[in-house]
Amino acid sequence: IPLSRTPRCSCIKINDRPVNARSLEKLEMIPASLSCPRVEIIATMKKNGEKRCLNPESKNVKNILKAIRKERSKRSSQKQREA
Amino acid sequence: IPLSRTPRCSCIKINDRPVNARSLEKLEMIPASLSCPRVEIIATMKKNGEKRCLNPESKNVKNILKAIRKERSKRSSQKQREA
Repeated sequence: IPLSRTPRCSCIKINDRPVNARSLEKLEMIPASLSCPRVEIIATMKKNGEKRCLNPESKNVKNILKAIRKERSKRSSQKQREA
Repeated sequence: IPLSRTPRCSCIKINDRPVNARSLEKLEMIPASLSCPRVEIIATMKKNGEKRCLNPESKNVKNILKAIRKERSKRSSQKQREA
């Protein structure tokens, strides 16, 4: 069945080099949809604002997501100690 | 120690209502940084483009992240069956 809309994914290719959670400015997750049939995970790098598409199924992405989620409590308790 | 820059977080308040992974157009994760001392998770809703800030430490967010990551294989195999 041909799609009525041309699929428009943001990612052209997936970068398989592992990325460190600390080097990220932002991480975007775009679920599969009519306009793009696959999940897209787009990392924006702190250093130069470069955007990289990551592999949603990689261990690296799993770890990054966990690291970002967990980071808060660590940083905020550090803040309190510094204050 | 006063911060040299005014912190600028994107989220004013956290919405604790659980969100379904399927209703998301996009999910942004912004790690803690100098400009905002806490992790921010911003969900853009499919329905109306509304943005909601979610609690990074909630079980709901953990589940959403997992659901989005895992979704691909399911959808793409479904696509193959439909084609």
